[in-house]
This record gives sequence, C-alpha cells and structure tokens, in this order.
Amino acid sequence: MRAALLGMLVGLLSAPALAPPALAQKEPVVLRDFGSFHVGGRLIEITGQPIKEIVFTPGGVPAKMDPNGRYQVEQMYVQYFLPQNRKGKLPLLLWHGGGLTGVTYETKPDGGEGWMHYFIRNGWDTYVSDAMERGRSGWTNTFKGDPVFLPFGDPWERFRVGPIGSWNDDPQKRTTYPGTQFPIEAYGQFMKQGVPRWLTTDDQIVAAYLELVDKVCPCAVLVHSQSGTFGYRVLEARPDKIKALVAVEPTLGGDKAKVATVKGTPILIVIGDNAKEHPRWKNIRQNSVAYAAAFKEAGGNIRLVDLPDVGITGNSHMIMMDKNSGQVADLIQAWLAEQKLVD
Amino acid sequence: MRAALLGMLVGLLSAPALAPPALAQKEPVVLRDFGSFHVGGRLIEITGQPIKEIVFTPGGVPAKMDPNGRYQVEQMYVQYFLPQNRKGKLPLLLWHGGGLTGVTYETKPDGGEGWMHYFIRNGWDTYVSDAMERGRSGWTNTFKGDPVFLPFGDPWERFRVGPIGSWNDDPQKRTTYPGTQFPIEAYGQFMKQGVPRWLTTDDQIVAAYLELVDKVCPCAVLVHSQSGTFGYRVLEARPDKIKALVAVEPTLGGDKAKVATVKGTPILIVIGDNAKEHPRWKNIRQNSVAYAAAFKEAGGNIRLVDLPDVGITGNSHMIMMDKNSGQVADLIQAWLAEQKLVD
Repeated sequence: MRAALLGMLVGLLSAPALAPPALAQKEPVVLRDFGSFHVGGRLIEITGQPIKEIVFTPGGVPAKMDPNGRYQVEQMYVQYFLPQNRKGKLPLLLWHGGGLTGVTYETKPDGGEGWMHYFIRNGWDTYVSDAMERGRSGWTNTFKGDPVFLPFGDPWERFRVGPIGSWNDDPQKRTTYPGTQFPIEAYGQFMKQGVPRWLTTDDQIVAAYLELVDKVCPCAVLVHSQSGTFGYRVLEARPDKIKALVAVEPTLGGDKAKVATVKGTPILIVIGDNAKEHPRWKNIRQNSVAYAAAFKEAGGNIRLVDLPDVGITGNSHMIMMDKNSGQVADLIQAWLAEQKLVD
Repeated sequence: MRAALLGMLVGLLSAPALAPPALAQKEPVVLRDFGSFHVGGRLIEITGQPIKEIVFTPGGVPAKMDPNGRYQVEQMYVQYFLPQNRKGKLPLLLWHGGGLTGVTYETKPDGGEGWMHYFIRNGWDTYVSDAMERGRSGWTNTFKGDPVFLPFGDPWERFRVGPIGSWNDDPQKRTTYPGTQFPIEAYGQFMKQGVPRWLTTDDQIVAAYLELVDKVCPCAVLVHSQSGTFGYRVLEARPDKIKALVAVEPTLGGDKAKVATVKGTPILIVIGDNAKEHPRWKNIRQNSVAYAAAFKEAGGNIRLVDLPDVGITGNSHMIMMDKNSGQVADLIQAWLAEQKLVD
C-alpha cells in the first residue's frame, strides 16, 4: 500500500511539468562541439582627449592610456552547443528579451534545466547570444541616452507574476496570480540575471543579429519579449535565411506592410496566462493578434497560441523560467516537428 | 614515399602546439551536467526620484517605471561544465583578467579550443565566471568613478603582442615580438571580447568570488592578470578552501605579511615571454618574484615558471589565447597532477 502510494507519487513527480529539477535523474549530454564567438560591430574614432595615467590594480604599476584612437563597439557574443545526436535539421537560435542576456535560456532561477538544455537534449544545434550592449557583448559610452536599471520589484507586476498592485517589499505580503507557474521563491535569483539596457540601440542590435544570421543560417529562431521585434526585423531582411520563427510573448508584431515578403516562413506565437485582460498586456497581445491576421490573410502559416486555451495555465511573461517550462517547450518542439524541421 | 611524407605531416599536425584548430578532429565531450547561476550581490535602496514613463520598444506600449526602491547589484555570473569522465579531484575555477569576461577561456579568437575546453576534456569540473561588474554579471550606475574603455590598439603593446612602439592602425605596419604566439590575424576578434571596467570595485569583486568559493569549493583556482590579485585575496580569506592556485601573469603577488596563513596551498606562477626586460612588465613580474621568495621562505610550495626558461617562447600576456596555449595548459595540468589533484 505504502509502496503503491510511493509509486503513484514517483509517477506524478516524473511528469516533466511537475518534476523538481534536483530530483530528476539527468542523462549525460554528448556534444560534438561547443564554444563561442563574437560577430558584428565596428571601429569608431575618438579624438582630442588627454592621455591618462591609470593604475589598473590598487598598488599596481601605473600604465599610460591614450583614450584617443579607435574603439571596437557594437559586437555581439554568441555561445553554441552542437549535440552529437543531431535531430534538428537546422541550427536553433535563442534570442532573449530586454534588460536580460542569453542566461534567460540557461539554468532556470529555481535551478531546473532551461530551454537551452531542452533543445540541446532534443538534438538541436543551439546558439544562445547576448544582444548587442548586454552581457558578454560589452557596451560603450557612445550609446545615446541613459541606460535603464530595473528596480527589484518592477518585473513582478510587469512580467505578470502577480497582478498590478501585488508587489510588496516584504515577501510575505506579495501576492501572485492564482496558480502562477513562476518560481516565486527564486525571484531574487531571477533579478540577478538583469543587466542595464538602453532605449536607443535597436538598429545596432538588429545589425549584429543580421551578422549572426548571415554566419550560421538557414536556421530556426526563437525570440522572447523585446527580441520579438528583432526577430521580425531580421526575418523581413533575410526571409530566405529564417525557416521558422517562434515568438514567445513578443512585444510587437512584424511590419504588416511586409507580410508578402515573409509569408513563406512559418510562425508560432506563444502567449502565457493573464495577458488578455491585463491593462498593458492586452495591448501588447493585440499587436500579435493583428499581425497574425495580416500574415494569414497574405496566405502565410502562422499560429497564435494563448496557452490557457490549450490547457496550460499560470504562465508569466518569463515562460522559459516557469515551473512548467518543459511543457511549453514540448509544444514548441511539436510545432517545429510539424514544420518538418526535426529528423 | 608520398604516404610516408603524409604520415610525417600528420605527425607534425597532431602535436598539440602545432595543430591548426580547424583541422584537428574533435572528440565528443560528454557532460554529466552543465548550467549557470549567479552568486552574491546585495539589495540597495534608491529614494526621491520621479516616476518615469518608458517606451521599451519603439512603437510599443508605454510602461510606468518608478526608479525608487531597491536594486539588485554586485552579483556574479558563473557557468559550469561537469564532464562525465571526471578526473580532476576538485572543481577548477577559471577567473579572467581586467576588462574581460569568462570568454577569455572559451573558444580562442583564432577559433581554436580554449583552456575551458582543455580542462573539461581533461576531466575537470570547470567553472567559468564573469567578475562582478562585467559580462553576464551585469553592472550598476552606483560604482564610483568612470568606467574605462580600452582603445583598439592599447592591448597590442600592453599585453606584449609587440614591444612598445609596435602598434600601428595599419595592420601592415604593425610589428610583433619575434616569434609571437599571439594570433595576430585574430586581434580584432580578441578586441570584441573586451568590456568596460571600473577601477574602484575590487572589494565587491572579491566579495562575489568569496561567495562562489563558499558555494563550490574546496577547489583549485586558475587566475589571470588582474584576477591574480583576487585569487590571492580570496586565498588569504579562505586558505582551507583553495587547494591549489595557478596564477597566470598575475599583476600583483599576494600579501607577504600573510604567507604563513596560506603556505599550505601550492602555487604555480606562469609568466610568458618578453616580460623580464619590458619597462612595465619587469616590475609586474618582480611582484611575483618577491612574493614567491617570501612564500618559499615561509616553507610554502611555490613555483614561478618563466616560460622561455622551459623552452616555451613567444607567449604574450594572453597565454590562453596564444597559438601554443595547449602546450602551456599541458604544463599546468602536469603541475596539478604533481599536487595529487588528478585521478
């Protein structure tokens, strides 16, 4: 009896959406190659500045540094993992959202495996990049305007962990949407993933993504939030290179005037819970609804999935970090297979 | 005859120091786990700032942002790779130098495998971090002073690719030290790895490294350049946790007043070519010479290797990116084995 109950419990725990990551027995991952590179960027010229003497290490030996001359700026960092047992027919590129880096797709804030692990384990040649200006791409003081730093509580409501008014500095007094899938105990760990961003650098970000696509595609691209915009812009510039686009909670749709150009690329849009009635997210979602209508009208293959409509509830904006991230990845993987991109 | 010549050629190419990376047949890497996390940092409080309305995506829906409140700052990003066939008895932590990130140890600017690959392939549980303030660790506008950006030509001479006066904006007019091992054709790719740094943040950087050491050690730590300082400071604070320290071209030695505390930890110092007579590097090298003397005097196990003295010539400051990086890694691996840290 006790063994039977334990058996049922183990059965429940081994369902992907419920398994605590620490308990899951991990299969080894075999990589035929892995590594990193930077793409894009340019050299700029600075003139007329005085020479500085700088002590790089307290107590160290001073070095003269001439701040004039040329600077490398606007490059992008890309890390790749190529599984031995390749099943994805094309490389899969994972592009993160605003104020974040490729860490979005790595180990989840609660310690579970992220979508990077998921797609590598499913045989995809996986490329995770840090958008120009963020993370290992570096940044420069030549960007226009001020960088934006997100207050600790800001994403709780803006990313729909809880409704407007649900944040409280006291963790005991915070509330969430009912049945939220966001690992609220790991909210602090999530906030450590944040990096500053500018509001003026879209063109340079897109330029670097274009360099990446020209280097490693044809491919499938998965975008999230802000990078939805970048995904559509790059698709519109290289419709022959992007063979499938997965847009997870994109902030905008593509350019409706250009659907005829890009309608040959199948698109999947995935939206989490509590977006339809949210005062801000209902407008963001509407961008995707309107774009999907125009894309379909042009004869394109586009699917917009509101996750609650397929029985997947409680997802925040950070779907790849939610407790049921594997369940949503399964949905994406099945769609990629439908597009005949999986061997 | 032709087969014999080909055999000789293959024999030459398969010597680690000479093999062009693109030609080398790579063995698959089997990982029992890999992922990332952030450690350390703290919450700070900002007050009295007006609420801003921000359009995060051009054409997107405005969001209100209250810049007051708490901010997560000073955390550190760490990525880890745990090989299935573990041979290193302890985790190996790779800490990069100033103005750079953990990318230092990844794929080399010339496309060859880096020291991260080398140590993973040699069975070490390998942890590569981005120092607090850099790369995927993020940064904050609360650091004191201005960030430093390195001009494009600056490291050529400062990192001893060529002697003082050897840099020229025209690649055809640049000169190098005779027989340099630095892949000068990939200098531009190397410069894309650079990120801004501050000159005031050593204490916060050390605090984050201490959190990492408390989380994953006992361990061996390999430091480079600026992180030499951090390695010694962390060793002095946690002499029981760091079982071996490899200092590659460290900018300073440790604290000579504390050698009695840390003399139980074996130390290997590795210095490249052209340092002894260089007007700046001879002083930097002297820091290590003096520290090694004090450490030895106290009864500690310390070895300072000037690479040319063991027949390895042409190395720049960026030894892990030099064409013969594998040869120097072999030397480090042999030393770690001598310390009985390899199964």
